[in-house]
Amino acid sequence: MTLTGELIIGAKRIAAPATFRARDPATGEAIEPAFSIARDEDVEATCALAWEAFDDYRESAPASRAAFLEAISEEIMALGEALIERAGAETGLPHARLEGERGRTVGQLRLFAEVLRDGAFAGVRIDPGLPERKPLPRPDLRQRMIALGPVAVFGASNFPFAFSTAGGDTASALAAGCPVVVKGHPAHPGTGELVGRAVAKAARRLDLPEGVFSLLNGGAEVGAALVADPRIKAVGFTGSRRGGLALMDVAAKRPEPIPVFAEMSSVNPAALLPGALAARAEALGESFVSSLTMGAGQFCTNPGLLFALDGSDLDRFERAAVAALSRVEPAVMLTAEICAAYEEGVAALTGHPAVKTLHRGAARRGVNLCRPALFGVQAADFIADDSLREEVFGAASLIVRCEAEDQLIDALEALEGQLTATLHLGDADAALAARLLPILERKAGRILANGWPTGVEVCHAMIHGGPFPATSDPRVTSVGSRAMERFLRPVCYQNLPDALLPAATKADNPLSLPRLVDGAWER
Amino acid sequence: MTLTGELIIGAKRIAAPATFRARDPATGEAIEPAFSIARDEDVEATCALAWEAFDDYRESAPASRAAFLEAISEEIMALGEALIERAGAETGLPHARLEGERGRTVGQLRLFAEVLRDGAFAGVRIDPGLPERKPLPRPDLRQRMIALGPVAVFGASNFPFAFSTAGGDTASALAAGCPVVVKGHPAHPGTGELVGRAVAKAARRLDLPEGVFSLLNGGAEVGAALVADPRIKAVGFTGSRRGGLALMDVAAKRPEPIPVFAEMSSVNPAALLPGALAARAEALGESFVSSLTMGAGQFCTNPGLLFALDGSDLDRFERAAVAALSRVEPAVMLTAEICAAYEEGVAALTGHPAVKTLHRGAARRGVNLCRPALFGVQAADFIADDSLREEVFGAASLIVRCEAEDQLIDALEALEGQLTATLHLGDADAALAARLLPILERKAGRILANGWPTGVEVCHAMIHGGPFPATSDPRVTSVGSRAMERFLRPVCYQNLPDALLPAATKADNPLSLPRLVDGAWER
Repeated sequence: MTLTGELIIGAKRIAAPATFRARDPATGEAIEPAFSIARDEDVEATCALAWEAFDDYRESAPASRAAFLEAISEEIMALGEALIERAGAETGLPHARLEGERGRTVGQLRLFAEVLRDGAFAGVRIDPGLPERKPLPRPDLRQRMIALGPVAVFGASNFPFAFSTAGGDTASALAAGCPVVVKGHPAHPGTGELVGRAVAKAARRLDLPEGVFSLLNGGAEVGAALVADPRIKAVGFTGSRRGGLALMDVAAKRPEPIPVFAEMSSVNPAALLPGALAARAEALGESFVSSLTMGAGQFCTNPGLLFALDGSDLDRFERAAVAALSRVEPAVMLTAEICAAYEEGVAALTGHPAVKTLHRGAARRGVNLCRPALFGVQAADFIADDSLREEVFGAASLIVRCEAEDQLIDALEALEGQLTATLHLGDADAALAARLLPILERKAGRILANGWPTGVEVCHAMIHGGPFPATSDPRVTSVGSRAMERFLRPVCYQNLPDALLPAATKADNPLSLPRLVDGAWER
Repeated sequence: MTLTGELIIGAKRIAAPATFRARDPATGEAIEPAFSIARDEDVEATCALAWEAFDDYRESAPASRAAFLEAISEEIMALGEALIERAGAETGLPHARLEGERGRTVGQLRLFAEVLRDGAFAGVRIDPGLPERKPLPRPDLRQRMIALGPVAVFGASNFPFAFSTAGGDTASALAAGCPVVVKGHPAHPGTGELVGRAVAKAARRLDLPEGVFSLLNGGAEVGAALVADPRIKAVGFTGSRRGGLALMDVAAKRPEPIPVFAEMSSVNPAALLPGALAARAEALGESFVSSLTMGAGQFCTNPGLLFALDGSDLDRFERAAVAALSRVEPAVMLTAEICAAYEEGVAALTGHPAVKTLHRGAARRGVNLCRPALFGVQAADFIADDSLREEVFGAASLIVRCEAEDQLIDALEALEGQLTATLHLGDADAALAARLLPILERKAGRILANGWPTGVEVCHAMIHGGPFPATSDPRVTSVGSRAMERFLRPVCYQNLPDALLPAATKADNPLSLPRLVDGAWER
């Protein structure tokens, strides 16, 4: 399939005069073809189409949206090896990882199809009228969820499939009944075009309104214009803190402010409790390094901070981690910008007077290589300096040595909001773990025991979210079936004649949805 | 019970040097005693106590929070006639209305107690581990909802009980496990003190941490200081658009932005379809006036805009409405400020070149009287002028005459977000109603047929919310059992040993909560 570099605006393919090219991060060289940068008129046309599609698409039967999501997953798989190859060239990510991520992405689309068929997402609640009630009758009240409106989705660089063109934000917004406009990540425009065409083809196959999906390319200006458009009603974003805050600012300043669901930054603290360290310091050091260096550390859930009590068991852990790190081959990072930011973050830690460099990967020939870094600091210094709590995106982590349990608690309390928090514990650690848990619950969206946070299962119970600045809204998740709730809002119908009621709330329940009737569930 | 005018800061009663007094709106005269205005140090002490209470209170058993809410309702009822009398003196609202509102308020507390005992609010989801899964095992994942943190609640002037000190925001936040700091409305500080003491007494009875509830008084500065405090994690507000926007701004500019759930302004459009007007123009005119003038029109859901096709049936409606209005006695408004704003809004409409005054209540001797007003305008003029779509808080409404169905649609499309939208329809109106419904769904949180929007049932299916500027977040409601969801966030636990898991997610389900296991509900 030949890439055209055109914008996908509903059924139209538009070439614009200004263009850019992807770069192979392993060589730094440009890859053909040139991709169009959306103009104001393209953003305008796209939003107009999305708006036009909205009322029809949001009222499509849940089963028909399920079929759409399944068709998208089929069309993505039908792209075959060409998709994996292009993504590999644009991201430097290895073949097996990309195949795994593609599996996750199509699995995610199918999960939302299941959720649609289950029907609980529609949130139908019925409080039947009580005409005889005194002193006042109760009206008949019926509630259901409807789609929020067209959603702008910002693709992330580090997951070219799972958090990008047809990733979790797109899948959950389409499931909810929202048309989607993707602003593709400029690091993988060819991957974006291939996936975008797959989505558009699925929409055509199912005869959906063309505005249900569009894909624009461009920089921050295109993104800001999209978020500012009055027809866009919500935003999904995965990326940097700076990028997320900028979009939140645009959204808050609109005449009609809209929610931005931004997943931004997390250092994913892990506490190594004394019993765990005593029992398995070496094994922990090795498994930590696997998690830290996987995908050159370019995961939102990369373990960037470790906390432990000072002592010989922590020394054992450090030695094992350093030994494991010395066996790690440097890996190509996603983009030159990410590599430069990583080097800057590592340099800040290396030059910090209170920070000790425990390991730095050796320099090798090649561009954009991630040389893993491990640092150590005393808890008192860590607590005193905000800058030590900032995310360094890539394989870099800081071990915080605590003098006592109380200092460990102070250090954890000093943290900002996180996507994850991890406890490694042994049998003797129960009491300390119970003291830490309430702190971690306040700080993070997901709490793990005896594992590492990389690897985010797509399922019903997953939360990929957390207090600011991990995300812009701790009440939601961007992974798992609840992700869809972000793009729905409730509407209540009072005393509407049955003929006028939407199908979800009609007396004979034609969609066979589960319903909460007078406070009790009926299935 | 003698009022002291002191701030309620947990178990302490604090007098501050600066004070204010309530005013009887019927006379304009000050009422004793003087009420303390919170200083920075009072806000600080209050937030510190709320934070201190948070971890304990959020983990209290749902049944214990249910008992707390029921104890509050008992203590409020135990205040007896003194509460109704003080509220009447401070608000000018009649006795029967206040008794009804008190009933609604204690009913609301009991509804949240029921929701707590039902347990679905805890949102427990379990995806059990699949250790044998290939290529990777699935970890054990368990999710539950936890409280967001201490909540600042801003009492509203127009519901001294139901949207104030122990109103819907307080009840739902306490139910969720959030300590509450109320910033009382300065129009009814004595009512606030009585109810605040009832809440504090209930907290003492149940031996809850004292910081679970505090009540501060003061102006906009106190409110802003409260919202800016880092220990406050969410805000509930019912009031003016200006007030709500100001708090949203403070919240967005914090180092850690927090959600503000503001219910701000709504003109509650009602469309009178041709069949309805033909069949019952006179009856509609009378029932409209009842809704419009109830409580001097000081309801968020007051019908401020009517839309109908031009013609003799609309003339009949207008005549009936004007006749009914001429029989309405002027009623005292809540405060001199509200009356002044009402007069200003009415004057703007009266002086508007395109607007015709259909009725204005006669002047009477007395202060702060609401003289109901009814206006008419042609749809073309209405569509051309944003200012005609603004809320005039009080008994004022504008009839928009449309030349044709398409113009009616254009006029409705011109509206901002609303709490409610109403259709009056007859048998012949089905097709037009079906055309309008998708527009109304986009505009409003609650859609009514053949009724008037005043009167908001407290139940499971109610939505008191809607797109901006009706509220700051169309995805939630401030009335009904779902109001609690605003103050909860999900946390996921991965592979935690059962002993460390919170009770809600433990294997043997000690709280007997309903749970979603592997995507299927278990009760």
